[in-house]
Amino acid sequence: MSVATFNLECPLPIADYPNVVLAHGGGGRLSRTLVEKIFLGAYPNEVLATLHDGAVLDVHGGRIAFSTDSYVIDPPFFPGGDIGSLAVHGTINDLAMCGATPLALSAGFILEEGFPMADLWRIALSMRDAAAAAATPIVTGDTKVVDRGKGDGIFINTTGVGIVRPGIELAPRRARAGDAVLVSGSIATHGIAIMSIREGLEFETQLATDSAALHGMVASLLDTLGSDVHVLRDPTRGGVASALCEIADSASVGIDIEEAAIPVLDEVRGACEILGFDPLYVANEGKLIAFVAAERADEALATLRAHPLGGEAARIGTVTSEHSGHVLQRSRIGGLRAIEMLSGEQLPRIC
Amino acid sequence: MSVATFNLECPLPIADYPNVVLAHGGGGRLSRTLVEKIFLGAYPNEVLATLHDGAVLDVHGGRIAFSTDSYVIDPPFFPGGDIGSLAVHGTINDLAMCGATPLALSAGFILEEGFPMADLWRIALSMRDAAAAAATPIVTGDTKVVDRGKGDGIFINTTGVGIVRPGIELAPRRARAGDAVLVSGSIATHGIAIMSIREGLEFETQLATDSAALHGMVASLLDTLGSDVHVLRDPTRGGVASALCEIADSASVGIDIEEAAIPVLDEVRGACEILGFDPLYVANEGKLIAFVAAERADEALATLRAHPLGGEAARIGTVTSEHSGHVLQRSRIGGLRAIEMLSGEQLPRIC
Repeated sequence: MSVATFNLECPLPIADYPNVVLAHGGGGRLSRTLVEKIFLGAYPNEVLATLHDGAVLDVHGGRIAFSTDSYVIDPPFFPGGDIGSLAVHGTINDLAMCGATPLALSAGFILEEGFPMADLWRIALSMRDAAAAAATPIVTGDTKVVDRGKGDGIFINTTGVGIVRPGIELAPRRARAGDAVLVSGSIATHGIAIMSIREGLEFETQLATDSAALHGMVASLLDTLGSDVHVLRDPTRGGVASALCEIADSASVGIDIEEAAIPVLDEVRGACEILGFDPLYVANEGKLIAFVAAERADEALATLRAHPLGGEAARIGTVTSEHSGHVLQRSRIGGLRAIEMLSGEQLPRIC
Repeated sequence: MSVATFNLECPLPIADYPNVVLAHGGGGRLSRTLVEKIFLGAYPNEVLATLHDGAVLDVHGGRIAFSTDSYVIDPPFFPGGDIGSLAVHGTINDLAMCGATPLALSAGFILEEGFPMADLWRIALSMRDAAAAAATPIVTGDTKVVDRGKGDGIFINTTGVGIVRPGIELAPRRARAGDAVLVSGSIATHGIAIMSIREGLEFETQLATDSAALHGMVASLLDTLGSDVHVLRDPTRGGVASALCEIADSASVGIDIEEAAIPVLDEVRGACEILGFDPLYVANEGKLIAFVAAERADEALATLRAHPLGGEAARIGTVTSEHSGHVLQRSRIGGLRAIEMLSGEQLPRIC
């Protein structure tokens, strides 16, 4: 598909990566490089450059949030959900991370010829249920069909608009020294639930995705803390580690975390050991990270824990003015380890 | 991917179409059935049920338009454009058809492992140029990568938000008896430009897509006619015929069109004859259909023709209170023919 007359120099080192590789979509270092070099290279605008989960736009004297995600998860059906519910939750969560109340979603389907109609119906119903539970209607859509062998059953894009709360400005660059770093529950569950199906792992109880819509929990947190919430992020692809690295980089701060404080379900930890994964890098779909003013940390934690989705919330770390741009983890036995962004592709097509 | 425990009955007759076929994405009758039975079946909300090019939502005391489209065109590069410029123009046009001034776009990429990085960069630049020309920034995005053989190079979703003009309400159901039906230029060019590459047809001059952003022309029309513009529609997949059939059905009116009045470039007409296509069913990407109050028809036509993209604008028909829900075409030799929605798949992956 290359055309010889294309002379503008590509800003990525073509010699290293002449072609797209799976890790360009993995949420780690290569994803970040692709976005920074190709997309920010082509569209150097202020809003996109925030690299937040969504954009915040001024409309009719107020603000709206606007966020998009495509879902290519393999397999499309899994314990606790499917590509449809995931697509609804994921985009609602991106809006929530901007401090917005979700208003409406669009749904764009790319179907492969031969995809079972009954499966499409099941996914449509699952999206309906997830959207209804979140009181966020699907108001516009699009369907494309590609020939057999040119897709993989079903891909879904959901894009959302939401109303940003007055007085709230959440952005990675707002993390500041002293902030408490909270996580709303045990991590790595979604990624391990999907991997365990792919690998045929068996647990005593079936491990289900943690996929959930987080806007209600965010509303509670913002009701209580207001502008003392500085950053919210849902740590999907690339996991908690990559999200923290991005925030440390954006805000030019250091982040210290305590391994022992990070909640992980026993069966998830066990599966990570078997599969050779670090839970810190495994995708989540129903968890958030919150950076809040130090003096409000206990209140924030109590608020998260009072929410049905936040029972296991924990304070996992602190922002520091030292080691700017870097994340350090103190291990259970007291050693310090630098946490880097995910490099390479750990779990392809996890969302 | 079917799961045996799925018991809710699918509203499409599974016996006829147990699996998705290409025509479900073709913009004709099967597309319409899929949307009505599956998506409206699952999400029976008022906004989606308008089946307009986008949704109109109340926000902060004003209105916004919200529209999504995925682009899967094959090949991704073609004379006059590429999948990137098409994705920008197409979504801007959907917003314009809602009477909105485009505000911002999102861009979601689904890349196949192995896609050339130089091609991605070329497409990103093309999107940049198209977005800049339309003064509509790309403010948020997403990138997924699927394994080789599970995609087809590049698919792009663009979703847009725009500001709806006060006092303007454009919707298919607003067509009414007496309205003049206008088209902004010669039809079927985009579809034939793409097909001619696929089929290796040669013309005396290279036929290029008519892909263009129409919001400027729409602004001129609304500046002049205001609420006397009743319906706007860009006749993409399924062509002018399918768009008119949808409008006739939505508004419960009849539409009469004159074959001799419909502008078609000579080389497009010639290619249609060779390929066995009726131009009325071939996709457009830079044309609009306007339904306007009868007494303003001449003014509307003059306004379209005064715009750089509307030089070939023509009045092609009239809305009637007869034969409700049906479109009739008077042929060059005077015969009447019923125009039906595209049935089956004429031009797969044209956008």
